[in-house]
Amino acid sequence: MPKVVRFHHVGDADVLQFDDVAVPEPQANEVQIEVRALGLNRAEIMYRTGRYVIEPVFPAQLGYEASGDVVAIGSAVSEFAVGDRVSVIPAFSFHEYGMYGEVVNAPVHAVVKNPDGVSYEEAAATWMKFTTAYGALVNMGGLAEGDAVLLGAASSSLGLAAIQIAHMVKAMPIALTNSAGKFDALRAAGAAHVFLGDDPDLVERIMEVTAGKGARIAFDPVGGANARRLIQALSFEGIFYLYGALDSRDVAVPVMDVLSRHLTLRGYELFEITKDSKKIEEAKAFITRGLASKALRPVIDRVFAFDEMVEAHRYMEAGNQIGKIVVRL
Amino acid sequence: MPKVVRFHHVGDADVLQFDDVAVPEPQANEVQIEVRALGLNRAEIMYRTGRYVIEPVFPAQLGYEASGDVVAIGSAVSEFAVGDRVSVIPAFSFHEYGMYGEVVNAPVHAVVKNPDGVSYEEAAATWMKFTTAYGALVNMGGLAEGDAVLLGAASSSLGLAAIQIAHMVKAMPIALTNSAGKFDALRAAGAAHVFLGDDPDLVERIMEVTAGKGARIAFDPVGGANARRLIQALSFEGIFYLYGALDSRDVAVPVMDVLSRHLTLRGYELFEITKDSKKIEEAKAFITRGLASKALRPVIDRVFAFDEMVEAHRYMEAGNQIGKIVVRL
Repeated sequence: MPKVVRFHHVGDADVLQFDDVAVPEPQANEVQIEVRALGLNRAEIMYRTGRYVIEPVFPAQLGYEASGDVVAIGSAVSEFAVGDRVSVIPAFSFHEYGMYGEVVNAPVHAVVKNPDGVSYEEAAATWMKFTTAYGALVNMGGLAEGDAVLLGAASSSLGLAAIQIAHMVKAMPIALTNSAGKFDALRAAGAAHVFLGDDPDLVERIMEVTAGKGARIAFDPVGGANARRLIQALSFEGIFYLYGALDSRDVAVPVMDVLSRHLTLRGYELFEITKDSKKIEEAKAFITRGLASKALRPVIDRVFAFDEMVEAHRYMEAGNQIGKIVVRL
Repeated sequence: MPKVVRFHHVGDADVLQFDDVAVPEPQANEVQIEVRALGLNRAEIMYRTGRYVIEPVFPAQLGYEASGDVVAIGSAVSEFAVGDRVSVIPAFSFHEYGMYGEVVNAPVHAVVKNPDGVSYEEAAATWMKFTTAYGALVNMGGLAEGDAVLLGAASSSLGLAAIQIAHMVKAMPIALTNSAGKFDALRAAGAAHVFLGDDPDLVERIMEVTAGKGARIAFDPVGGANARRLIQALSFEGIFYLYGALDSRDVAVPVMDVLSRHLTLRGYELFEITKDSKKIEEAKAFITRGLASKALRPVIDRVFAFDEMVEAHRYMEAGNQIGKIVVRL
């Protein structure tokens, strides 16, 4: 029987165990995949430790991202065939599916073919971050040529993905970081300009590099005290997408800016894209095009073996990675 | 020559003067109207006193709302004919047009026919407030049957209009006011529930009357300290439209609510509707239907004669009106 990583009570990385599981035949709208690589996400640590948006149901399966080969298809599946190299996009709950296994089933809407020339490891390091950034910036926000976009926590995996997405639509990515030591790396990663997130003159600096226009979009997982200046640096009809709360304190919103320029502040998460049948297909097409052209280049920090899953989780919790942590099967 | 009310320097109501003006023939896309009634707006006082979003250009014309008879049409106008009873919607700048005159030109996109059974005075008291409320609630917000909508400063002319708009789409209007003395009047005006805007238990009360769901939309010209609770009382994917800043202090936005329910805070103004060629036609159709069916009933506080324009401005500045101040010609 295939091995599947699950946990039977919440706790530290040691609770992850390798269970022999009789994976059922795929249902009508499912694809069965022999997994070759997994991408790890912080959500999985939060779920394992009981701090996620949903509570674990035991034995608890987990894992949002995988890449591998189709080994069986459900009766209603026409888009994929046995032997296709595919990846899985986070478009489901861990109560329904989990990708941490040698063989897994996935819902067909969450499956996408790997472009030629993209490895399993790269494919497993792609979909969470590029879909999240694409969704807010392009699909919902309509970022386009000539626009500037402010990226909070730009050195994060998602921030770096957003820089690449911005370039794909010929927009200007402006990176914000809390460390002057990261300026060179962010410029090398494609940032047109880099500033400190807590720079008291941030608004003036953004206006200077945008010819007084401001940024069309801010895309920020931080919030907190710095967010006020990001809002002030937005252009007419600008939008602030908040996709995290690294600082969970209230954001102070300057109302005269909001009124006079019709600004929007909006809470955003990936599932708004991946659980919408039209938007997820648009995301697949855009990101597949970017992977194929190498405009989108997933960054892998380190690759672990499947039987090192516990170590891989511990490594992620240490928090020193730059780019994706991948597990190879 | 027709008399037109203008001012030649900023100041109190006395600066308004009756000038004889040779009103030109309407241009290709203009309609010429013999005005029978004017609706006064606070924007005109702000413009007259030099505190509006645009600076006066002297001699300064003004006036956003009028109703009267078409007396001439431009060469490209096919929607209207001489003799039509029409009204003017605020869809232009005072630098371009002003309605304070016996005869005025108006751009054709800002003109709408009066429904049968609606007087000139009622028509002149209609378009600013109903279009503003319709635009946010229905056109942009998609308010619909089963939704609850929170109305800040509900006893204002615009708040009362929003109550009627909510009923037109079978939504539930929840009125907020700063005075318990207005509760009965707001219920009589159609509010399903009335609460104090600064009620510390506002969130629990809104959840109680919406079966735990929260309000789909908040429509508020106040902002300030109370706004935080309005945001917390929103439902999944709820939207807070801020259309004024009676309290100009920052609004404190609770980020976990915003993130977990994908909430939106958005600055909104009427011109987003009236300067959009598609949206203004949708607004005309919706509000004309409401006027004809009497679902929308403009409230008139007092009617002045044209030669009492200075007194009418003074009366508006005193601020004791409930409903529209109209000037009859």
